[in-house]
Amino acid sequence: MNVREAKPGDSRQIAAIILPIIRDGATYALDPEMSETAAMAYWMGHDKETFVAEEDNAVLGTYYMRPNQAGGGRHVCNCGYMTHSAAQGRGVARRMCEHSLDHARSRGYRAMQFNFVVSTNERAGRLWQSLGFDIVGRMPGAFRHPTLGYVDAFVMYRVL
Amino acid sequence: MNVREAKPGDSRQIAAIILPIIRDGATYALDPEMSETAAMAYWMGHDKETFVAEEDNAVLGTYYMRPNQAGGGRHVCNCGYMTHSAAQGRGVARRMCEHSLDHARSRGYRAMQFNFVVSTNERAGRLWQSLGFDIVGRMPGAFRHPTLGYVDAFVMYRVL
Repeated sequence: MNVREAKPGDSRQIAAIILPIIRDGATYALDPEMSETAAMAYWMGHDKETFVAEEDNAVLGTYYMRPNQAGGGRHVCNCGYMTHSAAQGRGVARRMCEHSLDHARSRGYRAMQFNFVVSTNERAGRLWQSLGFDIVGRMPGAFRHPTLGYVDAFVMYRVL
Repeated sequence: MNVREAKPGDSRQIAAIILPIIRDGATYALDPEMSETAAMAYWMGHDKETFVAEEDNAVLGTYYMRPNQAGGGRHVCNCGYMTHSAAQGRGVARRMCEHSLDHARSRGYRAMQFNFVVSTNERAGRLWQSLGFDIVGRMPGAFRHPTLGYVDAFVMYRVL
């Protein structure tokens, strides 16, 4: 598995990963009805660096990195990761997160923050913790899960 | 003191409040060098409702409200408040926050979240706590203060 910067030619495969996850609405606080154009603009916008994890020319996952805040907060980056449903359980997210930690250091970031990890997304929470992230915040009832109702969300943080 | 929706004619007075605070760079994670146009677009953007606190036709403070997240997170709002330096200590921020809590309930929001309260902004932190907000998160070293260096930032949250 190789992780590299996304190119315009990856758009179709990236859309095939992110749209089902956005439509599902269970893990990201994004409008499940957003258009494909809006979704791609969000994931590959000018404020972000976007990467893909590929194997045998197939894109298995994608992530973005951006400064989490401006001004006095721009030394902390934020990332979002999505794995193709057919590639779950193969360590794609772990590989992408490891790549992002290295990339963030090379960019001079001093920390990485996830603003909104849905508490019921336990696999993600455990993975980030195994990669050195701490739960540094808990927002009660901040996410309305499509089937579970109001659940908590976490802020997770790791110094680089 | 009256709090009302901002009108286009308030722009000059709003700019006179927000620009010095942004330029100072000690309390908001915004680019201190951002243009006046960018600052006004940020504060009065289409994604936000913007209000002013006025007395005798003078704008003493301003705040915005927006959904803090989209999709499953859109029932939580986010606000930012700024008071004119000459009107500090007169309860302007408290009055605006009380107004915002009422307005948020009328809009159907279920909670209010402040994503990034700089820990050294102790007056603000105490004020929000006196208005029912809890510190639900602490990001170590997430803000580079212009004179104090790296300091922590808080997530504050209040159910409505």
